Amino acid sequence: MLHLRSSQFSRVMVKLGPVFSVRHLLVLSLAINVSLMLTVIRERVKVEEILNMFSTKLQLATVSPSTGDGETTDNGEAIINLDHGDPTMYEKYWQRMGDKTTVVISGWQFTSYFSDPKNLCWFLEPELAEEVVRLHRVVGNAITKDYHIVVGTGSSQLFQAALYALSSDASEPMSVVSAAPYYSSYPVITDCLKSGLYKWEGDAQAFDKSGPYIELVTSPNNPDGFVRQSVVNRSGGILVHDLAYYWPQYTPITTPADHDLMLFTVSKTTGHAGMRIGWALVKDEIIARKIVKYIELSTIGVSKDSQLRAAKVLRAVSDSCGVAHPFKEETFFGFSHHSMESRWMLLREAVNRSGIFSLPEFTPGFCNFWNRVFEPLPAFAWLKCGDGIEDCESFLRGHKIWTRSGRYFGVSPSYVRISMLDRDRTFNLFVKRLSRIRSQRRMRLEHVD
Amino acid sequence: MLHLRSSQFSRVMVKLGPVFSVRHLLVLSLAINVSLMLTVIRERVKVEEILNMFSTKLQLATVSPSTGDGETTDNGEAIINLDHGDPTMYEKYWQRMGDKTTVVISGWQFTSYFSDPKNLCWFLEPELAEEVVRLHRVVGNAITKDYHIVVGTGSSQLFQAALYALSSDASEPMSVVSAAPYYSSYPVITDCLKSGLYKWEGDAQAFDKSGPYIELVTSPNNPDGFVRQSVVNRSGGILVHDLAYYWPQYTPITTPADHDLMLFTVSKTTGHAGMRIGWALVKDEIIARKIVKYIELSTIGVSKDSQLRAAKVLRAVSDSCGVAHPFKEETFFGFSHHSMESRWMLLREAVNRSGIFSLPEFTPGFCNFWNRVFEPLPAFAWLKCGDGIEDCESFLRGHKIWTRSGRYFGVSPSYVRISMLDRDRTFNLFVKRLSRIRSQRRMRLEHVD
Repeated sequence: MLHLRSSQFSRVMVKLGPVFSVRHLLVLSLAINVSLMLTVIRERVKVEEILNMFSTKLQLATVSPSTGDGETTDNGEAIINLDHGDPTMYEKYWQRMGDKTTVVISGWQFTSYFSDPKNLCWFLEPELAEEVVRLHRVVGNAITKDYHIVVGTGSSQLFQAALYALSSDASEPMSVVSAAPYYSSYPVITDCLKSGLYKWEGDAQAFDKSGPYIELVTSPNNPDGFVRQSVVNRSGGILVHDLAYYWPQYTPITTPADHDLMLFTVSKTTGHAGMRIGWALVKDEIIARKIVKYIELSTIGVSKDSQLRAAKVLRAVSDSCGVAHPFKEETFFGFSHHSMESRWMLLREAVNRSGIFSLPEFTPGFCNFWNRVFEPLPAFAWLKCGDGIEDCESFLRGHKIWTRSGRYFGVSPSYVRISMLDRDRTFNLFVKRLSRIRSQRRMRLEHVD
Repeated sequence: MLHLRSSQFSRVMVKLGPVFSVRHLLVLSLAINVSLMLTVIRERVKVEEILNMFSTKLQLATVSPSTGDGETTDNGEAIINLDHGDPTMYEKYWQRMGDKTTVVISGWQFTSYFSDPKNLCWFLEPELAEEVVRLHRVVGNAITKDYHIVVGTGSSQLFQAALYALSSDASEPMSVVSAAPYYSSYPVITDCLKSGLYKWEGDAQAFDKSGPYIELVTSPNNPDGFVRQSVVNRSGGILVHDLAYYWPQYTPITTPADHDLMLFTVSKTTGHAGMRIGWALVKDEIIARKIVKYIELSTIGVSKDSQLRAAKVLRAVSDSCGVAHPFKEETFFGFSHHSMESRWMLLREAVNRSGIFSLPEFTPGFCNFWNRVFEPLPAFAWLKCGDGIEDCESFLRGHKIWTRSGRYFGVSPSYVRISMLDRDRTFNLFVKRLSRIRSQRRMRLEHVD
């Protein structure tokens, strides 16, 4: 159209001559120029708007969690609840990661009960199984070769499934024991239905009954953070290893664990407690089948949506270890290990200043993951009250700090368990308030000084 | 710029005169027009591309499920598995709905154990609670006012939680009964841990023990589809109403249910079995608190991801009822009711042709939701083998049709339960294969004809 030769152009002009002059046509053409330029601008604005809209959609602009790091003035009135081990500390890391672990699930996806009908664990999403294997290989904290993976609605369900699997053929209730201080939920969960298959028998160190028994070995231990091994040490015992905290932000990874039955949970690995996803690594096929059977009876499998999300999160953790030096803050374990280190430093300072409290002392160990020696940094602080205070939980409640008494863990109420995994703001408030609690003796000494 | 008056235009022309003629300028302007038009086209293509890209992202282009409706030639070799009640029939509807129920969850969202700390059910997402109330109001199948809502990992977990809640103060195991044929999982779940709190006592119609008891009333009933009421009918009984199938695709909604303890599940309501979400409506606060306690012990709450997805799906169901006449196929209940109607018609035809089998006959009832009378269209077919066949399950296995024997439901093995909720392809194959099975007598008669 543009390649009108001069003569053609003249002919067109002559034809239009009576109505339009060349000048008129030029004005018209200029007008079209302007109109088209405005259209281009509008289209570009539209592109920007669409991009913004989708970006908002992908970020799901709901209420942002309060993760303020800022210093908070403490009037001593706010309740600081560190009773539960809610791992909200990790929220900050995942916020920084933006959309890297965003999941998108359509309405018609994952509607069936079945994930992988041919797998022993028919409700396990293959994607999650793959990421569990990969993460254990990257971290080096457990062997997965020749193990069956069974997914559970958190590791609590897997613990119950394990009790069922190990005792279902027993002629009388099997004894369930764990060395005190033991995880406070063990006795309650074990005995809540007054099962004829198993029965809570308390502290493994005091256990002297004959017959088969199940010993729960939590390592590192909840509540006190120490690395553990079985203590009963006689034949007829079956061990369940709860390795929820055997990750390099909490404890040196000394060896890939290879016990018969090991339990892990996403909530303590990556901080996603709301997903309710755990997994068991099981050596024996018959036991694995019984664990699967229990989960089938109890909840007919495990949420597919959370399994997919867990797979994505575990993949991001493994990926982050691959792209940067693991100690860098942009890696998941770098961020969480640094957070735990600075929190433990602050807590020990506050405790030293108080003159009332004491904390466990740990032997440093060489960690194969970090390739260096470090001292355990447990997910819970196991605090002891001195100064003649018998009930540490009540004492701290008086200061509006909520913790869990040692008596729930099978030991003296002079101990309490305190979560180290809350948001920065809560943790900083806690340390600040704790550091203001002084023993009478210390205050007198300070006064004399 | 365009409003150059004639004199101004002339002045511009005079200035440009030595270099450009008006004709030159017109050609230049036309060239600019063409270039701008091309730019506009390019920008529009870009908009389309972006929209496509995001649409693909939102649809999560994983493998599409096989929901082919096409006719399948049956060589009699493929196994047709209708043992489980996997509700994959609904997948087709949700595919049609496209991105309407797509959920997008960022990595940092919903990490905490807690959903609503001040609620009695602290792990219940407020969004889900809201949609449960709304859907019951839209459908009119249950009262929610003055009820406590407790979410569970499917209704199986809520059933166990209810047993715990109703028996936790009992001095000896409470009897658990249900009229035969009863849901095959009830006895297995009740007795699997040999609980000292409760004990399966079988068919409610034959129950004559004294003392407190729990009666399970499934209405419409699984496996046979009949509307039910309690049968024991003496003091000391506590009723648990399993209303998983009290929805207008299956049965006439005659009245809003208002029993003390009612159980529902997403899997049978919308077909999302993979979510593992159910809910209980509980009148008594103390019972509700105990149900919450059990879920806390058993799985420390319920997957947040699935709760959010369930909320979105329930919302879409309620919305679809609002925008179109409920009987239209674009409404969720329109689609599913039509599907059930045509499936039951096909099944009854095949059964009539066989001369071996029989099906329950239902009394039609007036449905307040559809505002018309219809005959129940249960989620399971409760098929009886005649012709001297004692073991119906084995007989059908011989034809590579997998079903569940009546003996699991507390009745004769001449019955089987068959899922009516599989994908079109499987259902059509089943009906076709069933219609080819003829009784010897019928075949002789046909031969004589």
